[in-house]
Amino acid sequence: MNDNCLVNRGPRDRMIPPGDDRERLVCPDCGFIDYQNPRVIVGAVCTWEDRILMCRRAIEPRRGYWTLPAGFMELGETSADGARREAWEEARARIDIDALLGIYDVPAIGQVQLIFRARLLSPDVAAGPESAAVALLHWTEIPWPELAFPTVALALKDFHARQGQAGFAASIDLRPSGDGNR
Amino acid sequence: MNDNCLVNRGPRDRMIPPGDDRERLVCPDCGFIDYQNPRVIVGAVCTWEDRILMCRRAIEPRRGYWTLPAGFMELGETSADGARREAWEEARARIDIDALLGIYDVPAIGQVQLIFRARLLSPDVAAGPESAAVALLHWTEIPWPELAFPTVALALKDFHARQGQAGFAASIDLRPSGDGNR
Repeated sequence: MNDNCLVNRGPRDRMIPPGDDRERLVCPDCGFIDYQNPRVIVGAVCTWEDRILMCRRAIEPRRGYWTLPAGFMELGETSADGARREAWEEARARIDIDALLGIYDVPAIGQVQLIFRARLLSPDVAAGPESAAVALLHWTEIPWPELAFPTVALALKDFHARQGQAGFAASIDLRPSGDGNR
Repeated sequence: MNDNCLVNRGPRDRMIPPGDDRERLVCPDCGFIDYQNPRVIVGAVCTWEDRILMCRRAIEPRRGYWTLPAGFMELGETSADGARREAWEEARARIDIDALLGIYDVPAIGQVQLIFRARLLSPDVAAGPESAAVALLHWTEIPWPELAFPTVALALKDFHARQGQAGFAASIDLRPSGDGNR
């Protein structure tokens, strides 16, 4: 596979398949319909006492910037399973999830991010293959200008606002996003 | 496209792509990698006074059985937008969403279902193209043996348990699902 291949092969014709009501990408060589739906990102704000686990990205996009352990949910796992897997893969962290912090929709890039709240079972964390470094940071040490994605800041602020609370409603924007729906 | 075509063409070779850590389906004809991730179902328990909007399915799977207005989230919308769109498409219902009722993971079929609580803006509802009928049912009228999917019953029971409540935690199973993850 190279870029040329990606451009000139695979699903690349936009058409409305029979029985559907919107355009999909179809491969003219093999007939495959590439149904593209939003992808789920799962992750967690994980703490050890009053410090928050953060990871410095070793990969693009946003290499070198700081993020929470999070990534694409995979088939065969629950959303909480996925958040536990990502904490292990990115920070060698074992965690106990206690609540859903928020759902962060990012329609511009086709993502739904489910971010949980969790406690580390041990402060022994280490950079996984996709992290250049991991750190346990006090709230005052969070490198706000160096956060990888806007949703990282949103989740951190939602975490901070709910400290000491249990049984709270997850943060989610329920308002119409205004593309003329209904 | 027919069944034969689906079997013999398109992404069908299982292999681990370079830089990845799990098998994906790759098309030997065009090199396309079909990353399959869980898909998001969005829907709502919608009420008019003390009656709940339900739809009788006009399509497979589970044609003839009763469900909530819900369906695959599409690109370019938020999860709440998607639930509003599905209420319109399946029941010609305009709704006001007020809370996230629950997240229902169904890893066996690669789904994450986000079900909201909403009020109908009007009792004027009607079957959309994927519904054979729609109905506004009292709690005692819900056809439990004729529900289309197990998560429909879960969402209805979670709705019932939270009636009159606001600011509640969404229903979600946070426990490890037991495949040896951590």
